[in-house]
Amino acid sequence: MITLTTDFGSPYPAALKGAILRRCDARLVDVAHDLPRGDVRAAAFWLRELLPAFPPAVHLVAVDPEVSPDRRTVAVRAGDHVLVGPDDGVLLPPARALAHEETGDAADEDGPDTLAVFEVDRGTGPFHARDVLAPVAADVHEAGVAALSSLHGLAATDEFVDLSIPDPDIDGRTAVGEVVAVDGFGNAITNVPASVLDGLAGESVLVNGRSAPVGRRFADVDAGERVVRGDDLGYVELCVNGGRGDEAFDASSGDRIRLALPT
Amino acid sequence: MITLTTDFGSPYPAALKGAILRRCDARLVDVAHDLPRGDVRAAAFWLRELLPAFPPAVHLVAVDPEVSPDRRTVAVRAGDHVLVGPDDGVLLPPARALAHEETGDAADEDGPDTLAVFEVDRGTGPFHARDVLAPVAADVHEAGVAALSSLHGLAATDEFVDLSIPDPDIDGRTAVGEVVAVDGFGNAITNVPASVLDGLAGESVLVNGRSAPVGRRFADVDAGERVVRGDDLGYVELCVNGGRGDEAFDASSGDRIRLALPT
Amino acid sequence: MITLTTDFGSPYPAALKGAILRRCDARLVDVAHDLPRGDVRAAAFWLRELLPAFPPAVHLVAVDPEVSPDRRTVAVRAGDHVLVGPDDGVLLPPARALAHEETGDAADEDGPDTLAVFEVDRGTGPFHARDVLAPVAADVHEAGVAALSSLHGLAATDEFVDLSIPDPDIDGRTAVGEVVAVDGFGNAITNVPASVLDGLAGESVLVNGRSAPVGRRFADVDAGERVVRGDDLGYVELCVNGGRGDEAFDASSGDRIRLALPT
Repeated sequence: MITLTTDFGSPYPAALKGAILRRCDARLVDVAHDLPRGDVRAAAFWLRELLPAFPPAVHLVAVDPEVSPDRRTVAVRAGDHVLVGPDDGVLLPPARALAHEETGDAADEDGPDTLAVFEVDRGTGPFHARDVLAPVAADVHEAGVAALSSLHGLAATDEFVDLSIPDPDIDGRTAVGEVVAVDGFGNAITNVPASVLDGLAGESVLVNGRSAPVGRRFADVDAGERVVRGDDLGYVELCVNGGRGDEAFDASSGDRIRLALPT
Repeated sequence: MITLTTDFGSPYPAALKGAILRRCDARLVDVAHDLPRGDVRAAAFWLRELLPAFPPAVHLVAVDPEVSPDRRTVAVRAGDHVLVGPDDGVLLPPARALAHEETGDAADEDGPDTLAVFEVDRGTGPFHARDVLAPVAADVHEAGVAALSSLHGLAATDEFVDLSIPDPDIDGRTAVGEVVAVDGFGNAITNVPASVLDGLAGESVLVNGRSAPVGRRFADVDAGERVVRGDDLGYVELCVNGGRGDEAFDASSGDRIRLALPT
Repeated sequence: MITLTTDFGSPYPAALKGAILRRCDARLVDVAHDLPRGDVRAAAFWLRELLPAFPPAVHLVAVDPEVSPDRRTVAVRAGDHVLVGPDDGVLLPPARALAHEETGDAADEDGPDTLAVFEVDRGTGPFHARDVLAPVAADVHEAGVAALSSLHGLAATDEFVDLSIPDPDIDGRTAVGEVVAVDGFGNAITNVPASVLDGLAGESVLVNGRSAPVGRRFADVDAGERVVRGDDLGYVELCVNGGRGDEAFDASSGDRIRLALPT
């Protein structure tokens, strides 16, 4: 199984699929091709949340604000999974999540033993994702995780761009975090765990100093109204019933969010 | 084969795919993930029209305006197909279409013998579609239709939310129906059969009292002009050549449409 | 393997998938379903660029501005590939690209020996792509390329609509071409080879008489600024960093583009 995640829109990902299927018969699963262009942290967040649902697989990721011949390509082994993509940090948060899941060791944030990073040196081509990432993903799929270190053009490295998705600061009745991603509906997803809202449905919180009601569902407020809720992934998200939360809360990816909870 | 239909947008459906593929090796087919949010009747319409094209399969459906722990999950057996989704009625119109197709009995609207509804009691999880619907769909796929009643957590029930897509009233040269769905281009699809337009190409009809030309193709009118035509699914749709028919005809999902045909 | 390319949007393509999977067990690969409606030349361009990445396959294509019972359906054999779609010319540019790839003969533009066109006479149905194109694609997949001429309803023909994507005129430091497609981000892709920009990064060119900077990446200019660059497919494209190049350059599909390069 090879999953595909890009910010390419349409129809470019078809070229990646063709290039993979020329080389192997792997099942292909699209994760998303409409991620915000070049937003490495949002992509890392989504992949961290979504990939642990999958069985062992090769995950091709192409989200990179600086596509250029200077950008290195890396493959990261995480337990029985392998991620292939640009050396811009996007692979590390999902790799840690996958490695922890394999070992069942959720507490060890670094998981150094189960992560292994390889630099990929296969030259380049006019369409890097089609000409390099796709063939490498196919080769990894065919060779298997255990053979990663012996694949043509792959060399273990301990130099790579790392990236962490920050944890929020929760102090008593105040949580300070940030927007980590905005989904296609405009819901602004924060890194604050939804559990801070437990028992607060129907009450109000202050979001960056401005009051907003807490709801379980969008429909708990009138159409067009703001609502703060816990999302399906387990985070606080800033929403508008039938509208865009990012606009109504003035909350873009990376913006700081201060939640003051009722005492 | 498991088909997937949601109003989740992107990238949430990837979690469902992962959760299914952890449990079985079924072929996955996306029906749509961009259905209008929470529009149960539009989803039921699309599924009724589209699913009969498929061979026997498990159909996971997640379109629900009231996602909450209180919503029951149901599985509906329809001939050799099984639909899994919320107990909000969305599964019943496609289930009837699939059951009729199996039996070849298009006239019997209720098809009580071939439909069987099961309540699913598997608890819940933070992301219901990933944590409950996807595993149930995978289990049904693995067990097969015949074993549905013996699956863990499934119990036959005759209490469930039903839903019907209304039939139009056609009386002489007047057809009164409603908009059942609006597609992504803004074409407003009604429940009036396209056959009422037979032989009327080039003439005009009154739509809620206002005249509009009948065409076979969008290009039968100038760009930006309104046109009433029969669509690929066999229904009258209200369109604009290169624009949005729903706006030009002021016709939203559920709106009443009165067509006065020339005599 | 059967690839699917349409301008149908969502959720109509699901009906095609169901109709195919009723008849065969082929792997299905979506190329795109959001191509500009009825833009035959843009579709032909995308298919010419994307399909050569694929291994031998059947390619179902449904992009047609004049869907009507009068439009013939054709199947085109190109090496080990077969394309099935409307007789509006959309299949010919990708067919030539696929045939050349098979023979390795990139110089022979016409490749008459490896292309064979068949008229498909299978009647029609309310939803032509579901009722005719999908079953034919499935039948071709099952029978194999070599059996094309003996398939029910297929007859070799030398009468078909042809289409060529024009080549640009390059004369010294001037290239005159046109916009062949606009992608979903609004990048206007021309038929001028990206190689004309070699060594010009940081300099300016005149696009239809108006100066614009040449960049390798979008980020080489400020957000909202215009930039002329070589795209992943090897063509000059007219872009805006974080915006729509087609609007900023007033460049729609089919528009003439005159590039004056610095001497």
